[in-house]
Amino acid sequence: MADDALFEFLHMEIVSHVYKEHATREDIDRERVTCVSTLEAMGFRVGQGLIERFTKDCPSFKDDLDVMKFLCKDFWSTVFKKQIDNLRTNHQGTYVLQDNKFSLLTQFSSGKQYLEEAPKYLAFSCGMIRGALSNLGLEGVVTAEVSIMPSCKFQVVIQKL
Amino acid sequence: MADDALFEFLHMEIVSHVYKEHATREDIDRERVTCVSTLEAMGFRVGQGLIERFTKDCPSFKDDLDVMKFLCKDFWSTVFKKQIDNLRTNHQGTYVLQDNKFSLLTQFSSGKQYLEEAPKYLAFSCGMIRGALSNLGLEGVVTAEVSIMPSCKFQVVIQKL
Repeated sequence: MADDALFEFLHMEIVSHVYKEHATREDIDRERVTCVSTLEAMGFRVGQGLIERFTKDCPSFKDDLDVMKFLCKDFWSTVFKKQIDNLRTNHQGTYVLQDNKFSLLTQFSSGKQYLEEAPKYLAFSCGMIRGALSNLGLEGVVTAEVSIMPSCKFQVVIQKL
Repeated sequence: MADDALFEFLHMEIVSHVYKEHATREDIDRERVTCVSTLEAMGFRVGQGLIERFTKDCPSFKDDLDVMKFLCKDFWSTVFKKQIDNLRTNHQGTYVLQDNKFSLLTQFSSGKQYLEEAPKYLAFSCGMIRGALSNLGLEGVVTAEVSIMPSCKFQVVIQKL
């Protein structure tokens, strides 16, 4: 209980710090894009580091789907304290991970008034997924979408090399 | 194992982000002070939030020493995955908390070459202690000192009101 709180609070601080810092600079028009990419990049490096520790004693994965399943179960449980509720794929490199109660959104009211704030709080996690996958040899694009708080859908599109 | 890694990596990212961001601004001469206080302030708010969760089901504390003991055992174990090794006090409001293997310093080489980098990595934790104490009604000054990595001494001086 208290463990996840540490990550949640720290994550909140980072988001608010990154947005505050950009707001005091002159490039306010570019603000939104820059903040999101700053957070995404931080998440990327954390994801890379974490997956290295997590998979230290793991057997290797047999295919991409196997990697995604590991991400949805083991990785998600450690970081977000629950598993992904639903994983879907078109078997052509696109994966949709549905989390019905995403831990970084649970502090918000579930009404619609905070819906447009949601992307702020998803950028870090998108980066983390991308970083984790990247260290496992899968390069891709990760986006997130919220239609009802606190449920969240992550879409991963793997780029075939 | 993997849990503490999340906090450690995230902490590393914050420190490097705060320092990088300040370095690109003009006020480079004031850099060090500003970065340390930014990190300290972030830690303060995280400490405040955490202690609220931690003490939700706790009986109240009988005195300042009791609060410090809680901080050294329960709080420290959850955040830093070990207890404080030694707690000393002059019984006049000064406490020295010695951690012989402080988790945020263990990634560094134990030689002397990184010694001057250490304060960067202690500011957040000092703030966290101050925030936790503040929410328990104790206002004070928290400083940290490293003589040999990865051991660290935190000094808390409680201000009598």
